[in-house]
Amino acid sequence: MEIFYSNDCDGNVCRLDAEESNHCLRVLRHRIGDEIFIVDGKGTLYRCELTGDAPKEVVARVLEALPGWGGHPYSLNMAVCPTKNNERFEWFVEKATELGVDVISPVFGERSERRVFKADRSRKIALSAMKQSLKAKRPLIEEPVSVRDFICARRSDSALKMIAYCFEGETKKQSITKALGSLRLDPTGNAAPKTELIILIGPEGDFSPEEARLAVDHGYIPIHLGPSRLRTETAAVIAVAACYLALQG
Amino acid sequence: MEIFYSNDCDGNVCRLDAEESNHCLRVLRHRIGDEIFIVDGKGTLYRCELTGDAPKEVVARVLEALPGWGGHPYSLNMAVCPTKNNERFEWFVEKATELGVDVISPVFGERSERRVFKADRSRKIALSAMKQSLKAKRPLIEEPVSVRDFICARRSDSALKMIAYCFEGETKKQSITKALGSLRLDPTGNAAPKTELIILIGPEGDFSPEEARLAVDHGYIPIHLGPSRLRTETAAVIAVAACYLALQG
Repeated sequence: MEIFYSNDCDGNVCRLDAEESNHCLRVLRHRIGDEIFIVDGKGTLYRCELTGDAPKEVVARVLEALPGWGGHPYSLNMAVCPTKNNERFEWFVEKATELGVDVISPVFGERSERRVFKADRSRKIALSAMKQSLKAKRPLIEEPVSVRDFICARRSDSALKMIAYCFEGETKKQSITKALGSLRLDPTGNAAPKTELIILIGPEGDFSPEEARLAVDHGYIPIHLGPSRLRTETAAVIAVAACYLALQG
Repeated sequence: MEIFYSNDCDGNVCRLDAEESNHCLRVLRHRIGDEIFIVDGKGTLYRCELTGDAPKEVVARVLEALPGWGGHPYSLNMAVCPTKNNERFEWFVEKATELGVDVISPVFGERSERRVFKADRSRKIALSAMKQSLKAKRPLIEEPVSVRDFICARRSDSALKMIAYCFEGETKKQSITKALGSLRLDPTGNAAPKTELIILIGPEGDFSPEEARLAVDHGYIPIHLGPSRLRTETAAVIAVAACYLALQG
């Protein structure tokens, strides 16, 4: 199944940009009257009929709208320190999108070696991973902030907030699986609708004890991700995978 | 913590090859009398004293041997079809090694687009991931065989054998988490010692129905890896992650 992305859907008509139009007409050779599938990046899949085939602007009439298509029964915000090697972070963005993530927040810790992050490349990767993995919602890639600002700005008291750090802090850490086990699941074994999760993953040099303490003071549960020493991007993907495996029955 | 790899440990003395010796003497500037840590790739960590600093052959006397260091309480054989893009498979090798895997078997399915696989690059990647993630056992990367030969050759009846395919077969699939839940865990929540797992992951074009049927006839449990459509290498890593998260309490 091939899906197209459009940022111009009014519910009745969807328009594709030049690149998607070209892919639709030149590569896949669609013609007027063909049925095509378009996602709006906000969570809805539209089953459409191709009605306009101008080279740079495909127009399609909506036959059916499927909201929440390819969605997951929880809301996940991953706050991850960008890795020294950009490709490793971008790989995390791709895998997290395939598994299901809503917001990716690049955060700089006191011990982060990388201090610059360009969100645009990651946004492109998230868009193509969304299409490849048949999802209708494009994860939001935020502009970077410091770990402290992230912790202090997020005041969502309903969310299950977790922080993974490696050193032995004052607080005993529990496994992410156990922490997720505290969530109420509906009879189908799925997470209750809108269950909100925030997970903080530190840089290669780990969080500072002050950052970890600040997070705990703001209601973050200290978690561990098992006995292995994992790279930053591996830890981040394992956290997304733990939610994916634990909260969808 | 920095560890070195040696394929020449007799239990009393460990020797490093030219590359590791150079890293030890030139990069990390170790001298005679220093305490260094050496793994043999077979599961044992040796705490050693550096006794010989010849430029290309470091010799170290064993002070303490720690068998099973960095190991996991199960044995996992991942049989995965190499991806069209080699880097994606090599990425799986790195991540699986970080999480814990014992044998990686590249297999060619009827629908595999890739028909050639060079194991050497993957072996190098597994070796450095083993050191980076502080493990003493190097996963075995086998030479490729066909999916049929793999299924027919493995007659381990004690193993929990699983196959992940996408099409709707005759047999109802269960989630990998549920399948792993059938394993007996000891009171600490860990898998019983030597619990043997074999997981088959298909190519981009999926297994053929005949391959899936052959696997089921040989005692493989059909599993799914959740609702998302995952790339081959993502599916393989998620399977390793499911074992890692489920079987280590």
